Amino acid sequence: MSIDERIRDSFSKQTMMQTLGATIDSVASGQVVITAPILPTSLQQQGAGHAGLAFSIGDSAAGYSALTVMPEGAEVMTVEMKINLMSPAIGDRLIAEGRVVRAGRRIVVVAADVFAEMGGARKHVAMLQGTMIPV
Amino acid sequence: MSIDERIRDSFSKQTMMQTLGATIDSVASGQVVITAPILPTSLQQQGAGHAGLAFSIGDSAAGYSALTVMPEGAEVMTVEMKINLMSPAIGDRLIAEGRVVRAGRRIVVVAADVFAEMGGARKHVAMLQGTMIPV
Amino acid sequence: MSIDERIRDSFSKQTMMQTLGATIDSVASGQVVITAPILPTSLQQQGAGHAGLAFSIGDSAAGYSALTVMPEGAEVMTVEMKINLMSPAIGDRLIAEGRVVRAGRRIVVVAADVFAEMGGARKHVAMLQGTMIPV
Amino acid sequence: MSIDERIRDSFSKQTMMQTLGATIDSVASGQVVITAPILPTSLQQQGAGHAGLAFSIGDSAAGYSALTVMPEGAEVMTVEMKINLMSPAIGDRLIAEGRVVRAGRRIVVVAADVFAEMGGARKHVAMLQGTMIPV
Repeated sequence: MSIDERIRDSFSKQTMMQTLGATIDSVASGQVVITAPILPTSLQQQGAGHAGLAFSIGDSAAGYSALTVMPEGAEVMTVEMKINLMSPAIGDRLIAEGRVVRAGRRIVVVAADVFAEMGGARKHVAMLQGTMIPV
Repeated sequence: MSIDERIRDSFSKQTMMQTLGATIDSVASGQVVITAPILPTSLQQQGAGHAGLAFSIGDSAAGYSALTVMPEGAEVMTVEMKINLMSPAIGDRLIAEGRVVRAGRRIVVVAADVFAEMGGARKHVAMLQGTMIPV
Repeated sequence: MSIDERIRDSFSKQTMMQTLGATIDSVASGQVVITAPILPTSLQQQGAGHAGLAFSIGDSAAGYSALTVMPEGAEVMTVEMKINLMSPAIGDRLIAEGRVVRAGRRIVVVAADVFAEMGGARKHVAMLQGTMIPV
Repeated sequence: MSIDERIRDSFSKQTMMQTLGATIDSVASGQVVITAPILPTSLQQQGAGHAGLAFSIGDSAAGYSALTVMPEGAEVMTVEMKINLMSPAIGDRLIAEGRVVRAGRRIVVVAADVFAEMGGARKHVAMLQGTMIPV
């Protein structure tokens, strides 16, 4: 399987992604973009997207960017992830751009930026930094 | 409204919590416990609970523990949150125990532990540490 | 060598610890305590201990607590560490209590609390949560 | 005072920076670069720079980048900081490039990259992401 197929196959098994309405936008070596609408079922108490929505797609985008640099047959697991939330997630949809910062043999350091898109404008709403391991 | 009522009222507006099947287990000053089943709709690619599930209920438990020490009328927002995932989230349900570590005037430092319960046994699957502000 | 000797031997090679005046207070399985005076050479711009002081001894205490559960001959390296600073580090000395939260084969999750001691009173000034690997 | 003067004045009071041999390389709006040699007095047990060295100059570079966007008269304090350590800090000196990611009224989100320089080559050894507040 190509990298693209491996990731789409794994992604299709992440039922959480379907629950959030998330889809893979693009896959490249060390970079994966996932988008999700801000569904009425994904909100926090003030009507913005829940922190868990930005986290979930940011984490998956970061994780799959790590998978692109891991050996075939590997799956990826999040060791730890930190998110800074900079603005309420308000808009039509969220776009999570994940990337590999450093690919080690045992550990892959990753990052992701999450943007809220409203009309054609993008706002940077969250930033993630974390660690992935092959399993 | 009592602290308990304020939190349950706010929680009922978090549609993300309903999507995840989460409920408030208990509310005390500086401590809130939230539980959620590991639904077939909340999984990662290997069939365990998605990192976003543990994050979402851990973040909400930590946030509401902060709200218990904030002035009436305040709402709480996550500034940042870090999660270490220690074991796959496998079992009947997850239990997120949030607590206030330090309540400042401008910032509340919080933590949460997430346990997976299977049968009667509990396993510590995730640990969160973060910062909340009143909004 | 006993665990205690291995750690004291490794610690004696950390010249950064000597620069900060740090010493090992105690070593137990999964728990190491390191203390350091708040030296005139370790301050931030307002005269409190620098964030880097609390971080350095917290990181070393956490790392050595991980080393107590690793195989003999291993050395430990910090993969990542997050610190929340809750109060200015003011007082006679800092006490960093490191502990193992979860010892895995490939990764050890650790935490540390840092206290400032003034007179006989202790104040909780920082909290760390991180990941160590054997090298 | 100009931004540059304010930061150099504050920096000169951070005795920890002098202990580590750190100097300010450049100051621009939202961006501050700090460098430090890897002194024999700043090492971990295997002879590389201690995690606390990369953290200290990364934290200061990030903090001063935040100060460039804060009102005159403000000082800056670290609320929290997370560091991923990607390679041992080996070389002639470390270079910490701090930057503002989002400047809010109450909170400034910052990041820093730390590079080790050996000969003319640079290696990315650490990445920090954190939160600053005016005090």
